[in-house]
Amino acid sequence: MFQHISEFYSWFSKRTANNQYDVQQIPLENMGGWGISYDSGNITHVSGKFFSVMGVDVTTDHRATERWQQPIIVQPEIGILGILVKVVAGTVYCLMQAKMEPGNINLLQLSPTVQATRSNYTRVHKGDSVPYLEHFITPRPDQAVFDTLQSEQGSWFLRKRNRNMIVLATSEVTVLDNFCWLSFDQISTLMAVPNLLNMDSRTVLSGIPFLFSDVYGDRLKLSKSSGLPHTSLHSIEYLLSWFTDMKARFSLARELIPLRTVSSWSLTDGAIVREDGRHFSVIGVDVRASNREVGQWSQPMLKPSQRGVIAFIGRYINETFHILVHARTEAGTNDIVEMAPTVGCIPSNYDGMASEDRPLYLDVVREAKVDSILVDVVHSEEGGRFYHAENRYLVIDAGEDFELEAPLDYCWMTVDQLTSFVRYGNYVNVGARCLLSCLIEESASLAPKLVK
Amino acid sequence: MFQHISEFYSWFSKRTANNQYDVQQIPLENMGGWGISYDSGNITHVSGKFFSVMGVDVTTDHRATERWQQPIIVQPEIGILGILVKVVAGTVYCLMQAKMEPGNINLLQLSPTVQATRSNYTRVHKGDSVPYLEHFITPRPDQAVFDTLQSEQGSWFLRKRNRNMIVLATSEVTVLDNFCWLSFDQISTLMAVPNLLNMDSRTVLSGIPFLFSDVYGDRLKLSKSSGLPHTSLHSIEYLLSWFTDMKARFSLARELIPLRTVSSWSLTDGAIVREDGRHFSVIGVDVRASNREVGQWSQPMLKPSQRGVIAFIGRYINETFHILVHARTEAGTNDIVEMAPTVGCIPSNYDGMASEDRPLYLDVVREAKVDSILVDVVHSEEGGRFYHAENRYLVIDAGEDFELEAPLDYCWMTVDQLTSFVRYGNYVNVGARCLLSCLIEESASLAPKLVK
Repeated sequence: MFQHISEFYSWFSKRTANNQYDVQQIPLENMGGWGISYDSGNITHVSGKFFSVMGVDVTTDHRATERWQQPIIVQPEIGILGILVKVVAGTVYCLMQAKMEPGNINLLQLSPTVQATRSNYTRVHKGDSVPYLEHFITPRPDQAVFDTLQSEQGSWFLRKRNRNMIVLATSEVTVLDNFCWLSFDQISTLMAVPNLLNMDSRTVLSGIPFLFSDVYGDRLKLSKSSGLPHTSLHSIEYLLSWFTDMKARFSLARELIPLRTVSSWSLTDGAIVREDGRHFSVIGVDVRASNREVGQWSQPMLKPSQRGVIAFIGRYINETFHILVHARTEAGTNDIVEMAPTVGCIPSNYDGMASEDRPLYLDVVREAKVDSILVDVVHSEEGGRFYHAENRYLVIDAGEDFELEAPLDYCWMTVDQLTSFVRYGNYVNVGARCLLSCLIEESASLAPKLVK
Repeated sequence: MFQHISEFYSWFSKRTANNQYDVQQIPLENMGGWGISYDSGNITHVSGKFFSVMGVDVTTDHRATERWQQPIIVQPEIGILGILVKVVAGTVYCLMQAKMEPGNINLLQLSPTVQATRSNYTRVHKGDSVPYLEHFITPRPDQAVFDTLQSEQGSWFLRKRNRNMIVLATSEVTVLDNFCWLSFDQISTLMAVPNLLNMDSRTVLSGIPFLFSDVYGDRLKLSKSSGLPHTSLHSIEYLLSWFTDMKARFSLARELIPLRTVSSWSLTDGAIVREDGRHFSVIGVDVRASNREVGQWSQPMLKPSQRGVIAFIGRYINETFHILVHARTEAGTNDIVEMAPTVGCIPSNYDGMASEDRPLYLDVVREAKVDSILVDVVHSEEGGRFYHAENRYLVIDAGEDFELEAPLDYCWMTVDQLTSFVRYGNYVNVGARCLLSCLIEESASLAPKLVK
């Protein structure tokens, strides 16, 4: 355990120095172990395992475009993202791992204790190559205090979900190389450091409030005067009814199609790119690492065209901070809509467009003044599938002049109301969960500043 | 409103006398408006609306049979099942409808205020033929106090779900012919009457505890001495983790196939039957009614081979009644498993089989003694799709000698823990929800008897 956060930085920089990596972009056709099907153009591993890149045809009445085609990652297996925690003298500590992923900015980031695929954790032979996995698979000695299936990026994954777990260790845990205990307060501080806590960590950590709601749950109650009762605009019944209405009202139909036939996309110069260069491309990478089970491998990755913005717009209502949640439909969304940030897009996709053609509320975020910014940090998405996929995570206090009226697929709720949906799975999308993780820290440090 | 329940019976018998119906089984080939596709053998309406009967090929590692084929009803539209309620002097009243459905035992049963299809409630023109629908579609004047998507019979429907709603009326409501206000206590009493409250009513009523949890929620806390704190064996976190583990552990794959090619089933004498006569058949019916928008129609229906049993086995643990919940996989289950009764089957399917080949715990239910039976009532399933589909609903107190150890896909929980999952949708299956509705009454009347 680190007495001071500077000790962590020192440890982490040693990890970086000790592990040598080299990641090079290569043509998709040259990836060892992966093939492009002659018939379909789909990209699959020779073993049939891991994941595939296919095409999808999407029809919905809940996007600006009624029908489109795009490449998408298909990975039906449910993996485990698990953090082992312990409590010492009333403080929660998380066992975190310094882990390299080829798509990571800085290559090395902090990941959960375990990232495991289903083949890892259901295998009969207990020759586990994944350290600490025994704490996360039944029968296990410890208690899972948070354990739910959560979706991942719906624009890039078809119905992907992983099992997010927080397990309370009940016996002594040996700390292996590349692992360290960090107190939850230290993690909260590190959450403000760009590209350090990886996406897998951030999504699991959004479950922390359920672990010790008396300590950490209270941080989510952003009210102007801490003595006041916490008052939400809507009841939980209202929010559930709104969300049900969205699922009943809108439709989303998907059909897998051969990647080769996806319109407006083509295999050009070793990558699959969109004619207009927007959204993302599919590239190949070659990885050489000293620190992984396999010393060298190739794989396809999705590379976004530019940095994205994932933002909640909020304001005080009844002296309590509320955020404007969007019921959002994406190509790969599991069940029509999920609760999402107010804005989630790559702004440069809309450069030069008229205001009415840009995503709703994007301009409000772009024009936000320094004093209104509660959270502002750049994090990157899962480095095992996405190459340098950076998003700027923002929470804006738009002020009490910001109009309460919003389109029917937006709804105001408090931060702890949104948090309460996280434990049930498939309610809150990955962008919103990551923002909630950022807010746990901000709630503690910024709420007092906001008392007028 | 009825001062005494006898006034209701008088009203209901007049409704029965005033409405003349005739339902006859006819060959599937003779149904007007419905056709059997020459290529696939699938049964569809000429308009393409309503529903279809198709074939499904099922593969799973969570049933006694690893792979099978069967006919299944496909109806992707989300309908509304809604009950309008009002509160007078602290008592909750529900607006119920005396409604004929061709598959009903006794033809006339009590249904929710509204049963509407998506085409009803999304139509632009407000020429509503469904009374009271305006209370259930946005923008609505009243508050939805319960509103969630719930699954229906997974053995017969592919991923079917309906929107279950309870709406609190805020202004005067005119009571139309065939409608009546019943207090929730009166409904609880009528729940013990065989084949009176239809399935749609029972599933919506399982949401009542959320409406007035201070009044009705307490009924679900079956404890031996009412003064004692209510103690559950497991925490909600444990139950959520168990349920997540079931979804991650088991698999369920389905593929729609032509009805004509379903193995072990064939079109014989105007019905689709299984060679061994087990499970169900698909029949045609001709309906003549005085009381429906359409005076005459034909339709296909599913007809179970025999009466089924849907039962919770329970016992007291820590002085609190617990039930043994099964994580169950059926052909049409939306997401691998749902929380289901301990036993759900047609017992005659297993006549003559060895004990180890019969469904787990079926023998415990069959051998239960009179004194151990908390609930015992015959209800029928949705009469618009199922013909005389009766189930005997049972809750058994198996006694404190009944072993706590159970297979990993069974879990003990209290009645109010199971109830707490109902509002999130797709957690609790239709059989378990109907048993919960029965238990609201039984909890009030039987709990005192159980104090030893």
